Amino acid sequence: MPRSYTRRSKKTGLAPGSAVHVGAKRSELVRISVIQYTEDTFVEKTVASAVDCHALETASAMTWIDVNGIHDVDLIEKMGNLYQLHPLTTEDIVNTEQRPKMEDYGDYLYIVLKTLGHVKGAGNLDSAQVSLILKRDLVISFQEAESDVFDSLRERLRKGKGRVRKMGSDYLAYGLMDCVVDRYFTVAEALSDRIEEVQEELVRQPSRGTLQDIYRIRHELVLLRKFVWPLRDFLSGMWRGETRLIEEQTRIYLRDVYDHAVQIIETTETLRETLSGMIDIYLSSVSNRMNEIMKVLTIIATIFIPLTFITGFYGMNFDKLPGKDSLEGFFATVVVMLSVAIGMLCFFRSKKWF
Amino acid sequence: MPRSYTRRSKKTGLAPGSAVHVGAKRSELVRISVIQYTEDTFVEKTVASAVDCHALETASAMTWIDVNGIHDVDLIEKMGNLYQLHPLTTEDIVNTEQRPKMEDYGDYLYIVLKTLGHVKGAGNLDSAQVSLILKRDLVISFQEAESDVFDSLRERLRKGKGRVRKMGSDYLAYGLMDCVVDRYFTVAEALSDRIEEVQEELVRQPSRGTLQDIYRIRHELVLLRKFVWPLRDFLSGMWRGETRLIEEQTRIYLRDVYDHAVQIIETTETLRETLSGMIDIYLSSVSNRMNEIMKVLTIIATIFIPLTFITGFYGMNFDKLPGKDSLEGFFATVVVMLSVAIGMLCFFRSKKWF
Amino acid sequence: MPRSYTRRSKKTGLAPGSAVHVGAKRSELVRISVIQYTEDTFVEKTVASAVDCHALETASAMTWIDVNGIHDVDLIEKMGNLYQLHPLTTEDIVNTEQRPKMEDYGDYLYIVLKTLGHVKGAGNLDSAQVSLILKRDLVISFQEAESDVFDSLRERLRKGKGRVRKMGSDYLAYGLMDCVVDRYFTVAEALSDRIEEVQEELVRQPSRGTLQDIYRIRHELVLLRKFVWPLRDFLSGMWRGETRLIEEQTRIYLRDVYDHAVQIIETTETLRETLSGMIDIYLSSVSNRMNEIMKVLTIIATIFIPLTFITGFYGMNFDKLPGKDSLEGFFATVVVMLSVAIGMLCFFRSKKWF
Amino acid sequence: MPRSYTRRSKKTGLAPGSAVHVGAKRSELVRISVIQYTEDTFVEKTVASAVDCHALETASAMTWIDVNGIHDVDLIEKMGNLYQLHPLTTEDIVNTEQRPKMEDYGDYLYIVLKTLGHVKGAGNLDSAQVSLILKRDLVISFQEAESDVFDSLRERLRKGKGRVRKMGSDYLAYGLMDCVVDRYFTVAEALSDRIEEVQEELVRQPSRGTLQDIYRIRHELVLLRKFVWPLRDFLSGMWRGETRLIEEQTRIYLRDVYDHAVQIIETTETLRETLSGMIDIYLSSVSNRMNEIMKVLTIIATIFIPLTFITGFYGMNFDKLPGKDSLEGFFATVVVMLSVAIGMLCFFRSKKWF
Amino acid sequence: MPRSYTRRSKKTGLAPGSAVHVGAKRSELVRISVIQYTEDTFVEKTVASAVDCHALETASAMTWIDVNGIHDVDLIEKMGNLYQLHPLTTEDIVNTEQRPKMEDYGDYLYIVLKTLGHVKGAGNLDSAQVSLILKRDLVISFQEAESDVFDSLRERLRKGKGRVRKMGSDYLAYGLMDCVVDRYFTVAEALSDRIEEVQEELVRQPSRGTLQDIYRIRHELVLLRKFVWPLRDFLSGMWRGETRLIEEQTRIYLRDVYDHAVQIIETTETLRETLSGMIDIYLSSVSNRMNEIMKVLTIIATIFIPLTFITGFYGMNFDKLPGKDSLEGFFATVVVMLSVAIGMLCFFRSKKWF
Repeated sequence: MPRSYTRRSKKTGLAPGSAVHVGAKRSELVRISVIQYTEDTFVEKTVASAVDCHALETASAMTWIDVNGIHDVDLIEKMGNLYQLHPLTTEDIVNTEQRPKMEDYGDYLYIVLKTLGHVKGAGNLDSAQVSLILKRDLVISFQEAESDVFDSLRERLRKGKGRVRKMGSDYLAYGLMDCVVDRYFTVAEALSDRIEEVQEELVRQPSRGTLQDIYRIRHELVLLRKFVWPLRDFLSGMWRGETRLIEEQTRIYLRDVYDHAVQIIETTETLRETLSGMIDIYLSSVSNRMNEIMKVLTIIATIFIPLTFITGFYGMNFDKLPGKDSLEGFFATVVVMLSVAIGMLCFFRSKKWF
Repeated sequence: MPRSYTRRSKKTGLAPGSAVHVGAKRSELVRISVIQYTEDTFVEKTVASAVDCHALETASAMTWIDVNGIHDVDLIEKMGNLYQLHPLTTEDIVNTEQRPKMEDYGDYLYIVLKTLGHVKGAGNLDSAQVSLILKRDLVISFQEAESDVFDSLRERLRKGKGRVRKMGSDYLAYGLMDCVVDRYFTVAEALSDRIEEVQEELVRQPSRGTLQDIYRIRHELVLLRKFVWPLRDFLSGMWRGETRLIEEQTRIYLRDVYDHAVQIIETTETLRETLSGMIDIYLSSVSNRMNEIMKVLTIIATIFIPLTFITGFYGMNFDKLPGKDSLEGFFATVVVMLSVAIGMLCFFRSKKWF
Repeated sequence: MPRSYTRRSKKTGLAPGSAVHVGAKRSELVRISVIQYTEDTFVEKTVASAVDCHALETASAMTWIDVNGIHDVDLIEKMGNLYQLHPLTTEDIVNTEQRPKMEDYGDYLYIVLKTLGHVKGAGNLDSAQVSLILKRDLVISFQEAESDVFDSLRERLRKGKGRVRKMGSDYLAYGLMDCVVDRYFTVAEALSDRIEEVQEELVRQPSRGTLQDIYRIRHELVLLRKFVWPLRDFLSGMWRGETRLIEEQTRIYLRDVYDHAVQIIETTETLRETLSGMIDIYLSSVSNRMNEIMKVLTIIATIFIPLTFITGFYGMNFDKLPGKDSLEGFFATVVVMLSVAIGMLCFFRSKKWF
Repeated sequence: MPRSYTRRSKKTGLAPGSAVHVGAKRSELVRISVIQYTEDTFVEKTVASAVDCHALETASAMTWIDVNGIHDVDLIEKMGNLYQLHPLTTEDIVNTEQRPKMEDYGDYLYIVLKTLGHVKGAGNLDSAQVSLILKRDLVISFQEAESDVFDSLRERLRKGKGRVRKMGSDYLAYGLMDCVVDRYFTVAEALSDRIEEVQEELVRQPSRGTLQDIYRIRHELVLLRKFVWPLRDFLSGMWRGETRLIEEQTRIYLRDVYDHAVQIIETTETLRETLSGMIDIYLSSVSNRMNEIMKVLTIIATIFIPLTFITGFYGMNFDKLPGKDSLEGFFATVVVMLSVAIGMLCFFRSKKWF
Repeated sequence: MPRSYTRRSKKTGLAPGSAVHVGAKRSELVRISVIQYTEDTFVEKTVASAVDCHALETASAMTWIDVNGIHDVDLIEKMGNLYQLHPLTTEDIVNTEQRPKMEDYGDYLYIVLKTLGHVKGAGNLDSAQVSLILKRDLVISFQEAESDVFDSLRERLRKGKGRVRKMGSDYLAYGLMDCVVDRYFTVAEALSDRIEEVQEELVRQPSRGTLQDIYRIRHELVLLRKFVWPLRDFLSGMWRGETRLIEEQTRIYLRDVYDHAVQIIETTETLRETLSGMIDIYLSSVSNRMNEIMKVLTIIATIFIPLTFITGFYGMNFDKLPGKDSLEGFFATVVVMLSVAIGMLCFFRSKKWF
């Protein structure tokens, strides 16, 4: 994770409002998808440039412009000019190191979200930035790269299912946010599954890798929480009606997303709680293993050390060792040895060492 | 516990307000019990469908509809339409993954609670969701499955005991919440009993299982606290009179439930405090056991190692070992051995090792 | 402590406002002491029933009714009716599992306090509940059992010392609260003395019991804090003038009790801080002891193991062992042994092991 | 430190407002120094009784009465009457167990501060209580014993340096508070120096005393923080203008002291942070030492135990031990021993044990 | 770091508002650079004294005075008089032990910031203080020593790039703050890189130095956080419009810096979280190493101790040792030895010790 801070320094010393793409380098063409709809009509197009998509706008219909790719800084700046966005907004859109936030610029809302997802194959969490511009009758979404996160909403728009075709751009923005938050549930579930796996490993045969797994999961929980926490904060303001662009009837839906955000935060808390319990259990199992090793050593050593002493005793080369020349002496010695061994075993038994 | 998050993902991508049953699958028939009462009259019926129970409603009496089972999504949606519930409410009722909350929809309050109980036989905590709809003269309660949690209240209604028949629907809703909170006390007591058991085990003979028990109990305390905490929050708002549907005279009772909620939260805090002390004592007892093992090993080894050296010394095959051929040499050697052994024992005694 | 939650479940399922005695069973007769006073007059009586004490009331004098024993539920209910207390108040008075709180019922204040004291002989903290009813010109106090907590105040009333005879019932209630809070100082001092004792034990000779003592004291600190914390909260409201029944001139005294409560809370914080330092020192002393044991073992073993090898070497039964048949060989061997032993000792010395 | 709570119990059961000296017993005479000044005039006297100092007061000049010693309760009570202080104020002045606080009694402010200083020779922190009474044109300061804490301010007054002679009593009170807070910086610096010393000890040769030193310093940090924290709180209220007795132009100076208080709190936080890191390093160094001891034991034991076995093998008294009678057999055995020893050493080398 | 508090005590006992240079001693000449600009004009000069730079001021242009060096207290006091700064401001400018803060003196804002940077070569963080005075049409910046922190802004002013030449002094002050905050990103990135290095070391071969590195990084994170935290607080007030000197259009930029501050704080939190995980991993790896050492010792010792006993047994000098005189006896003994050794190895294998 530390790597993610390394890219920010590119911007040091530039004038504020300078749009510089901060993020992984990409070279694909930026695809802009435009959807226009009223309750009865639905038009979907893919355009190549910012001007094209501005030309498409009409007063009578809702418009959703979905920009897939933000590495083409020129295009973003052109759009910023066409839609009268503040230079700081344009700067933020192309800088993928934002934290989730909502800014009210009077005639538009600027919302930054982070999508999260597990990369297939690798176990690591991958995050991407989504910027939303909410104007009256218009929503623009900027994604770092093409993704399927809004597919379900697009499908609902196409089929006219649900309330989305009947309501305004604020409801559309809500829908987009809901899509992102829904992903968080998937991530939380995946993390919770992995915790369960590690928990089983912990009971069966904990290894050093177990501890590192625990910390890796904890790190991802921290990441998830870091993305949801500010979301919760500004959603709370939005459904309480602090911004003019959200209509009364949409607020209740925002309360619902807010609720989901709170639920995810609580889940991360509970999971972290579980993880710290697991760390304690791991550490205590390391101690227990040490105890077990010590017990084996102590039992073997303390049984044989006195016996070896006795053999040593009769191994001394004194010419007149008592009992040395009779068979009875030998057997008596063996009997003494056996009693010592059995006595020791009884002692360990009484200590419940085995 | 992690398992409880696994079911949420069923809903990803659906339109908001889509009622989908999220929870354990069930196939029993849903039983709807309808109770209508005034101060003097009391009628109790069991109906089969939503329409039936709506037909029963009359203006002059209080009505309590108790729906046992929420897996029949059609029925819940029909009821939602009949009683003019917001689609989000209907969606939340059938989704058992809610956190406790209270939502004011103007003409009705929507309250989500969680009942908690120990499954008989198994030691695990089991939770179920209860949704309440509070309208003027009407309360609807939705339970995941039939349970005995409201039996005492129903009995009081039947017999006309207490204030419940004389007061409005808000008091009935209060009664239902009180039943749920009363259960929490039982759970807290059971947990506290189990803590006492584990505490005794800790003094007698702590094992690795002890630590896992401690963490299991801690986990259940976390669960309990997670369910009571939001309850406390919205109860505080309710008795302070933030909602129009709660009458002045009922508020004092809500303050009482609020008080109980605070008391339960404090109990969980105290118990968690006790648990973390127990973890420390467990870990320290593991260390102490190690110390004891090391002491036994060290005492035996350090007494016999010098003795064995002496026997080895006279075991050397030098032709001219001093004292080898006299009995005095032998006894002198034995005396030296005894002095070494006794000296060592005195040394350990002075260190208070035994 | 867990035991204290076990009794609450008696009440599960009862109608709210049902007065059920929850607490240790008692059978003594309830003693009601009535004190009436103006600036110039003072009358003290002991009555047997609730009616008697109501009959005594007069408009011109302040009345303080002190009920010693709350297990006679009938009597408490009768008093509740006579003095027009809300059923929830009556219920709370006989339920000893309340947390400290203040409730404003308009024409009276209901205050719950917890007295704390060390049982003589046994080291355990004992708590009892005190309920206060503050009306204009009347204060009723309910104690679980007879105690000496209010004796100093009663004495001051008798002798007309201080301001108490000149001021209203609010000042009397303040006086009662002050008595309870004064006790907390005694408890805090006792705990602090015990901590000092354990601290000395920790330096001299820590044992497993030391750790358990630390946790026992910590538990009592938690208890103390739990009783003072809510007190602080409602006292803050009272001296800021949120309730009509407290007059301007009394508020400054309430600020004084509030101040004491804060001081006790801070003391508990400091003491807990000290305790957790003591736990760390204990754990580290266990580690140090282990180190010491290991050192003794290692020194003895590593000195004698090489020596024993040398004796073993010359104990081999080869016919032609070099130097076997000369006295020089023997002495050379002894010199080698001594050098090994001295070399080892120097090595340990250089490691500062002894 | 626990000792400091032991004295409070003297007061249990007394009427509120009873002035009882709670603190270390003293018998010196109380010295009252009176300073009167205007911008142009300056008079300094030492008086013996409260009446004397009241007689000195004049309307036209600022008066600062500095009472050194509060064990003469009669004198304090007389002053309380002369200057119309509330009985609770008088009670608080002679009780040295106050926490820092500011109380607004309408016509005067009562401020309690704690001075802190290291006793020369001994390393322990010593605290004393300072009470300030701020009235229009008059400041009274009560100190537990004579000290040099206000000397620099007195000097400035004498020489007419700075703003102090030109401004009101509020500025004088500010000056006194500033003197006390300046001392905290000295204490914080001394603590930080001691931390540095212990840190060096920790790197060189940590002992059990090191840990106790760390906890002693931590305890003093807690004390410092405990005294500054409430100061910060009420200073914040004072410079924001909550009290009528502080004039507009003085507020900016109070903001400055407030700022210093915040700075000291932050310093204690940083130092505590450092201390807990040091505790971890100490504990880990104990573990590391154990590891080192174990390594020495293991290396010596595992090299010689197999060798001793070989010597034992050829020490057996079988008549027909292979190779027993040839010199080759002997040398072969020696070669085997050397290979075992070298093999072991290589093994430990590969494990990086030495 | 503790050293940084040592210098403050120089000031103890001085009158408030006495400007005393608290900080590292310097003797370089103070360089004052003056920049004057309108949208179209740009003048840059270096002057020698305070009077010179005051003379340069004109009503029509923005002026930025950059003072490099604050050890010349006379010069700072002269400037304070010329620009009518409050004595407390002058005192604060020359005292480098300030915490970041913003003070509104009505006709000017006084802002204290801390720049942070890694000293080249050495790994330590170095901090310097920057004071800003913001008046209408004038910004004065005071730096401890010459640095390159404002170079990028100066360059932009020269070239007239960005908005800075078109806007007021508040925007210039914003630009200066932005420069300082940009540096924090560089520091955070450097710390995050070092954490990554240590993390690799932790996996490869952790040593005691690793732990000290971790604590050193943690200490620098604490420092960074300590400097950003108060910044965040007052920036929040500034962009919400609490001060008259900040114009509406600049506020949006202040929100941007505020945002950056929050982002840095969150980064430090995440990094600290990572660090404490690393400490746990380090400690657990120490335990694991101990386990490994114990295992080697136990395996070697428990295999050879019984074997040595057997050799000792046949080393006894009894005249009639069974099997002593036959070759079969010898081979039987060897077979017994081998079985014991193999049995032990199987036992360890079953325990998964190797």
